[in-house]
Formats: sequence, C-alpha cells, structure tokens
Amino acid sequence: MKQTSNSKLRIIPLGGLEKIGMNITAFEYEDSIIVVDCGLAFPDEDMPGVDLVLPDVTYLKNNIEKVKGFIITHGHEDHIGGLPYILKDMNLPIYTTKLTMGIIDKKLTEHNLLRSTKRKVVKHGQSINLGKFRIEFIKTNHSIQDASALAIYSPAGIVVHTGDFKVDYTPVFGDAIDLQRFAEIGKKGVLALMSDSTNAVRPGFTQSERTVGVTFDRLFAEHRNKRIIVATFASNVDRVQQIINTSYKYGRKVVVEGRSMVNIISVAAELGYLQVPENTLIEVDQLKNYLPENTTIITTGSQGESMAALSRMSTGIHRKISIEPSDLIIFSSSPIPGNEKSVSHVMNALLEKGAEVIFQDAHVSGHACQEELKLIYSLIRPKYAIPVHGEIRHRKANAGIAKQLGIPDENIFMMNSGDVLELDENEAKIVDKVQTGEILVDGLGVGDVGNIVLRDRQHLAEDGILIVVLTLERGTNMLLAGPDIVTRGFVYVRESESLMEEARIVVTEAVSKCLMGRYVDWSKIKGVIKDTLNEFIWKKTKRKPMILPIIMDV
Amino acid sequence: MKQTSNSKLRIIPLGGLEKIGMNITAFEYEDSIIVVDCGLAFPDEDMPGVDLVLPDVTYLKNNIEKVKGFIITHGHEDHIGGLPYILKDMNLPIYTTKLTMGIIDKKLTEHNLLRSTKRKVVKHGQSINLGKFRIEFIKTNHSIQDASALAIYSPAGIVVHTGDFKVDYTPVFGDAIDLQRFAEIGKKGVLALMSDSTNAVRPGFTQSERTVGVTFDRLFAEHRNKRIIVATFASNVDRVQQIINTSYKYGRKVVVEGRSMVNIISVAAELGYLQVPENTLIEVDQLKNYLPENTTIITTGSQGESMAALSRMSTGIHRKISIEPSDLIIFSSSPIPGNEKSVSHVMNALLEKGAEVIFQDAHVSGHACQEELKLIYSLIRPKYAIPVHGEIRHRKANAGIAKQLGIPDENIFMMNSGDVLELDENEAKIVDKVQTGEILVDGLGVGDVGNIVLRDRQHLAEDGILIVVLTLERGTNMLLAGPDIVTRGFVYVRESESLMEEARIVVTEAVSKCLMGRYVDWSKIKGVIKDTLNEFIWKKTKRKPMILPIIMDV
Repeated sequence: MKQTSNSKLRIIPLGGLEKIGMNITAFEYEDSIIVVDCGLAFPDEDMPGVDLVLPDVTYLKNNIEKVKGFIITHGHEDHIGGLPYILKDMNLPIYTTKLTMGIIDKKLTEHNLLRSTKRKVVKHGQSINLGKFRIEFIKTNHSIQDASALAIYSPAGIVVHTGDFKVDYTPVFGDAIDLQRFAEIGKKGVLALMSDSTNAVRPGFTQSERTVGVTFDRLFAEHRNKRIIVATFASNVDRVQQIINTSYKYGRKVVVEGRSMVNIISVAAELGYLQVPENTLIEVDQLKNYLPENTTIITTGSQGESMAALSRMSTGIHRKISIEPSDLIIFSSSPIPGNEKSVSHVMNALLEKGAEVIFQDAHVSGHACQEELKLIYSLIRPKYAIPVHGEIRHRKANAGIAKQLGIPDENIFMMNSGDVLELDENEAKIVDKVQTGEILVDGLGVGDVGNIVLRDRQHLAEDGILIVVLTLERGTNMLLAGPDIVTRGFVYVRESESLMEEARIVVTEAVSKCLMGRYVDWSKIKGVIKDTLNEFIWKKTKRKPMILPIIMDV
Repeated sequence: MKQTSNSKLRIIPLGGLEKIGMNITAFEYEDSIIVVDCGLAFPDEDMPGVDLVLPDVTYLKNNIEKVKGFIITHGHEDHIGGLPYILKDMNLPIYTTKLTMGIIDKKLTEHNLLRSTKRKVVKHGQSINLGKFRIEFIKTNHSIQDASALAIYSPAGIVVHTGDFKVDYTPVFGDAIDLQRFAEIGKKGVLALMSDSTNAVRPGFTQSERTVGVTFDRLFAEHRNKRIIVATFASNVDRVQQIINTSYKYGRKVVVEGRSMVNIISVAAELGYLQVPENTLIEVDQLKNYLPENTTIITTGSQGESMAALSRMSTGIHRKISIEPSDLIIFSSSPIPGNEKSVSHVMNALLEKGAEVIFQDAHVSGHACQEELKLIYSLIRPKYAIPVHGEIRHRKANAGIAKQLGIPDENIFMMNSGDVLELDENEAKIVDKVQTGEILVDGLGVGDVGNIVLRDRQHLAEDGILIVVLTLERGTNMLLAGPDIVTRGFVYVRESESLMEEARIVVTEAVSKCLMGRYVDWSKIKGVIKDTLNEFIWKKTKRKPMILPIIMDV
C-alpha cells in the first residue's frame, strides 16, 4: 500500500451505532468529505407521538464546503430515509445504483426535491472520483436488490465498507456477491473493514433467498383450494418476484396491496428488476372476478404495523379485502425486535376470523451470519476492523470474529456516533468527538419535540394531568373564582367525585392560607398548589399526575 | 363413566384466554362452584400507567353462595396474583400444594389477609371434596416446583386440567410428572382435557431443567477467573438450586439479589424445596471480603425490567453492586414476548461497561411442546378438548394436535372468556356468556382507570395538550381575561413562540366573534375554541393535541 501523503483519513460515524437505523458515516481526507448513506430511525417506545428520527448533521453543515456528496449503499429506509430532510438544508449530489436511485427519486419527488438534486447512477464495478476519494461500488446480496459494498480509496489507504449484506451464491435475480473483487482488493492491502454486524451473534450461514421460493412452492401446492395472502417487506423485490412466480405456476392472479409495496414494485418493474408474466397482476377491484383459490394477495404489514394493509384486513377495516375462513395467510418475514407483540396481535386477529396462518419457514434474513463474516474478513484481511450496523451486542460479536481471525484487540474499534477515528498505515486512534444526536420529526415539525416535551408526554401518559385554575383580582390578589380542578387521563371523574371534591377543598384551603399570608408572588402560589395537591393525591392514590396550576387575573 | 345425575357440568373461563395471564376458571355443577387459579396480567403497552390487570369476577360475586373455594395449580403470578385483590371482596378458602401456599401466604401477609383466609395444603395424590366436586392433585413438572394438574370429578364426568406443565423425566428436585396417574384416570374415561397451549406451536420435546445445570457447569469451568452474575426468573427455584450447586462445586460464595427472588428463595428454603450447602450464601455486603472470581450473584431482571436489580446494575444505579469489565453475565432466561427490546437494552448497557454477556443455551422452557401434548392426549384420551393458556395462535395449534390425535372438530372447543360450556357424556355446547373483563390497578386505585382514561392518556402521550383558559364576567359574558394558552407535551414552547402567539390570536378572534354573536352557551364557546384550534394546529403542524378549554366566570 503506497502512502502518498502525511495526512490521515478520518472516519466519523454520525449516527446508527447506538441504535438500529440512522446510518450515516462521513469519510474525511484533507479538504474532502464524502458521506456514506443517510438513514432515518423509527421512534422507540419512549418517544410517543414521534414519527421519525433523523441524524443531527451539524458536523456536515459546519464543513459544507468540503462535502462532495452522498454515496448510498442500498435502498432501505435506515440508509436513505434521511435524504429528503437533510437535502432541504444542504444541496448535495447523490451517487448510487439504479434501483436504489429509483427508490430515492420517488422520495425526492414527494418532497419536491427531484429537480434541484444532482443524481448519478453508478454500476457495480464502476468507480467515481470525489475530491481526494475514489469510491468503487461492489456487488453484494441483501434483502433488497442492487445493494453495494464500497471500496473507498484515499491517499491514506483503502477502506472497505460492506453495507448491509449477505452471501447468496444463488440469488433470485442478478449476480452473486462479487467475492473475487473482494479478494482482489484484499490483495492490494486494505486499511480498514467496516462490516455489517446485524447477524454476528448467529452461527453458520444465512440461507439463500431462493430457499424461500421452494417453501412457497410447497405451501402453494398444499393449499390449492385457498386464497393465499402473503405478507412481506415492501422493499424485498426478490421475495415478491418469487411469490409472483409461484402464483403464476399455480395459475393464480396476483394483487399487490399497501402503498409502500405498490410504490417499490412499480419502480422495480419499470427499471427491470422485476419480471411479471403478462396478465398476472390484477387490481384489487378485479378480485371479485376470480375464484378465491385462483388469487394471491401480496401485502404490507408483516411487522404488525397498525396502519398497514394486513392489519386493516385483520380488524375488518380494509375497504376492499375481508378475511375469510378459507384464506391462508403466510408471514414471509420475522418480527424486527420490538415488533413481536404487534405481529402476534395481527396473527391472533386473523385466526379469530377463522383463517389459517403460517409464520414459520417462509423467510430468510438479508444479513450475513458468522461464517459469512469470517469469509469477508479472510478475503479482505484488513489491518483495522470497525464493526458497524448493529446494537453494541451485535458489534461486539463481530469484533469477536475479527479477533478470532487474527486482528489484534488494539486494531478493533468499537466506535460511538460522533467519534473521529484518524487512521493511516501506521496507526489508528480516536482523536476527537463531534456533535451528533437525534432530531425528532412529529408531523410537520422537525426538531421542535425534544427531551422536555417527551418527558412531559411520558408523564402525561403514565398518570394524566390535574389542571388547577383560579382567577385573582388584579392588585388585591383577592380570589374571585376557583380554584377549579379539571383532569384528563387521571381517574374516571364520575366514579371519583368525592376524591376530586376533597382535592378541591384541600387546594382551596392552601390557596386561601397563601393569599392571607405574605405570599403574593404567583410562582409561590403555584408552588403551594403543586405541593399540596401532589401530597394529597399521592397519599390517596399512590399516583403522581402532572399538576398544572393556571392563575388568571382580572 | 357413570352418570349419576341429569345435570350438566359447566366450565366458565373468567379470564386468561384473550391474553396471557389472568388465569381463572369456574367449574359449576348444580349448587357448587369451584374456581381454578386466580391470576393477574401485566399491562399492555396501550395501558400507560397501569400497574396490574385483574379479572372481573362479577359472576362469582353474583353466585357467591355456591362458591366453595380456590384451587391453585402453581405459584406463578398469572395463576395466584389476583388472590389478594379478589379475596378482599370474597372470603373464600384456598387449596393448593405446600410451596405454592408458602408463596401465597407471603402475599396474603403483605395484604393483611393471612389470618382471615382459610388455607389447606394438599399433597400430590390427595383429593379434596368441595360440594359436588372432588378434586385430585396430580404431580407435574414446570418452571416452578410443586405444580399440579387437577382431575376434577363431578357427577357429569371427569375433567383433567393440566395447569402449566412440561414432561421432565429427570427433574432437579422431586419426582417426574405422574404419567401413570394420568394413564389411570384416562382409563376411567375422561370427559374433557384442558391443556396448556403455551408451546403448542413448537415441535418436539422441551428439554429437561437438568440440561441447564450441565450448561452452568461448562460456563463456570470456562470462566474460573471471573465474577459470574446469573439473571433468571425469581420463582424458578430449581434454576437457583442448580446455580448454587455449580457455584459450590467451584468454591464460589453466592449472593441473591432482587426483592422478589429473596422472597421466594427464603420461602423455598424454609419449606425444604431448596438445599443450600452451609456457608455458601452470603449477604451482598460481604462481597467485598471475597475475590470476585470466588463469587456468584443470582439476580432478578432477566426480562430487562427497568426497576429490577440487573437493570440497576447495568445503568450504574445499583447501590451495592457495580459491573466490572471482568464480570460474566449469564441470561438464564428467554425474553417473554414484548420484552425483547428491554432485554437488549440491558445487555447493551452491560456490554458498554465492558462485561461479557452470554444469552444463549442457559435456559429451557417450563411448558410442554407438541410431542408432550400428544403424550398427554394419548394418556387421557378425552372426549372433549379445551385448549387453554395461550394466545389464540397457541390454542389453535393445540387444537390442531387434538385433531391429529383423533378428536373430532366438533368436540374441540376454542373458548373465549365468559363462555359457558355445558357438558356431559352426551353432548357439549356453549350455552351462555357471563360478564368478564379487565379491572385495571393503578397505584391504590382498583378499577378507577377505564377505557376513557386510557384513551386520554394515549392521546396525551401522542401529541400533548393545549389548555385554553379565559374568564368571563358573570351575567354579561364579557371577556375579562384570556384566552391564554398553556401547553404540555406538544412543542418546546421557547422554540415555538410564534406558533403559540398565532394560535392565541386565532382563538381570541374566534372567542370574540362568538361572544359578540348569539352564542352564550359555554359548551358552544368551548366547541368553537376546540374546532378553531384543532384546525389551526393541524394545518400548521399535522398534529392533533388534546384541546381543553376552561372557562371561569367572576
């Protein structure tokens, strides 16, 4: 490996390491910064009302003159979802593969950003030059087509970033992962490997996507007399392809349900990533023209999402499709951690309607297991290992594999978001920490919901609110009206009348005493109301509702 | 099977079939009712602030003169947790095995009910007579000791209820499940089998509890130079026994941490269900007197419960134990559905502190898999099958097994809570539906939080609240003060000042118009405020906070 400069490469993950989602990493060399991926995260349960979570890209804004553009590894939300929000503040070009760009284009169109954004489609095997960097796109396999690993060439050395990947020797569409190229680049000498940790805790090898097709064949053969509904991930085009293939084989017409799935399928078909035999796809309204056993419905909602098509079918509020006892529903998915209960919920509702539900064996993961990671480490033989994409337990497992394969502890970096890793052939170390964080999106508001608002929401959710209102005479502070107490989310008032009446008396006494004494400062009156009521309510109910005193004067 | 009467047996599940937990079933024959189990459930995520969920036992209250008592199958919360609450309203005797009673006694003592409650300890193999019923306790295996199946003899026939069970041929303590007795009773002719469905979706056989001991032995041998912390279920006495055995073998002192575990361990040791070698258990304060590698800590918190000991250790707020990089933490558990994220959270926090975490292979289930269910069906050969204990998907799987073993569809009953199944040798059918439901416990309040309160809490959690206050002159309805807007959980006000100011102007205009016009009815003014503000806020933010107008007059 030739080193043509004394400068060092800096790798700065701006998100995605503390929790799944929000993948975005800056690579910096002298006056050049490139950004790999720009994802969003979905809110945790302690973020009620929040729709999306975006990465804080202050570091990019502060160095905007250096930033050359976004390189996108594949079209999943946790890698592209942040783009339309971030691009509103920063007009930067996007470089990625054809299908990925097709999916991004759809988003940019919705956000009215398509025209203003420079976009360049790159093929696997091609490279692009951006400032001091050259970036080569390498074919990989994943649960969405057109996924890429990246070889990032800098004067300080080569970094290989796997993106999200698995090794599929027999993919449904297109080529297998380009292991030869991984080996070639490995031979050149690679500084660092950043690899997908999602399945690093799982031994063995992830099964080929094609095995799911075999399962579909068996299930369709066994259920010839039933309508078949298959729920899967909207973006898994190969999965959809296989469901269409099997349906065609068994003479079934196919309906695609759910907005996100319709969107991606249409992009994929348009760009040639999906082959649909003629007269196979029909509109949902045409279902009535066919016998149920001659139809397949492919739908979103495999994660139990309450607004998705399958969930609406299960509760009987889908406008066009109602579940019948003669339906077979196949969950071609496994629950993403945290969704287990919602998925069970939907399954139970479907069973309640008498349908048959199959939720095993019709899915494979899109991420590499331990043996695949060992393969990639062995082909690349990096000097440094940087496990990415996964919770700390996944990344630690990945680090364990790196260690097994001979990379010394001190060359394995468990990074946090914001860490600045400076590296070249001689050494690597974390030298700085830049600003990162989570920007919450709620409705149209980006960033106007923060910790205080979330804490209030949680408090309100736990025990509700007591509002105490009173009117004082201006100047004299004489009590003219109130204190009245209004509650929401605390107790069912009609059944707790005496408790609320007692509370009113207790507060009235406290306020009266307060007004008689020397307390005239409103904040003091409010303090007395809070303390008195808190104590009273806790004693009576062992609960701590939010207490909000409001004073008016006239 | 002799039938000595023309009356029929009625089986009435009062809870536990729609969701896990809250197991309680009434058996009624003429003037006699017996109740099997009395559990509680833990709140779903759509029940913020709720601590516990109890079954609605109106049916028992309305028939209290018939009710002979509670028969308890084993000491888990979903089978005994409702007792102290229900017994406050109904003084009824309890019949169960020794360890189960020991655990119940502890609860009754806490609720000041021990003296007033008649309790009778029953041994496996013994029967008790209650009104028209005879109930025989049969030894089974489960993840808590002293679990029983019940043979319920009535003049209309025999019902066998498995309780929660597995088949463990090599239990850690005491005997294996009494399969001979199951066979004998089966030979007599059994009307109905009510069997545990929890693992009915899993093929094969549940492993023996003893296999976990083998895993502990291996892990302790491999980690001689580390302190070992094992997290498991508080009530799994056999698990604790095995951890103590392995610790003793490797010369380690053992600390038990977490209130619920200390409680159950002390009951179990006192009653002879746990054998602790002398000088093995030490207090947490004594840890400092031993080398870390010579100690084991057994702790609660294996489900990621935020207040449990392990969680407090992981976040550094445990007062006596802090996690060190040289610690090994073993999760001897698997996450109960819905707890996956919390468990990951705690694991990640432990890893963050540098500890090693093992979360595979050190657990077995306490419930029967498919082959065990087939065995029990084959020994009992019931006329009717009633799958119990499980979500509908588990119970359907159990029904599928019953069908495979020759029970016709029309003899398999998928019951819902409140269904009254009337049966004898000639026929079985659901003849009635009685009142059932969920009573929510929040702090000291039992039943004062209902659907309206929960809906309000969810609304508050999603988008917060806007409170609009104004003061009118009594009689004239002249606006004396306000409208002022106060918000909580909506937006961070300091950063949204202009939005809130605009909102105030919009509301003021609407109210003024209203007061100028003929609207003098307060409810109409409130309606105008709500509509105006709703529309304005939705337009500006695409959010729907709760809007609460409060009018005072002076």
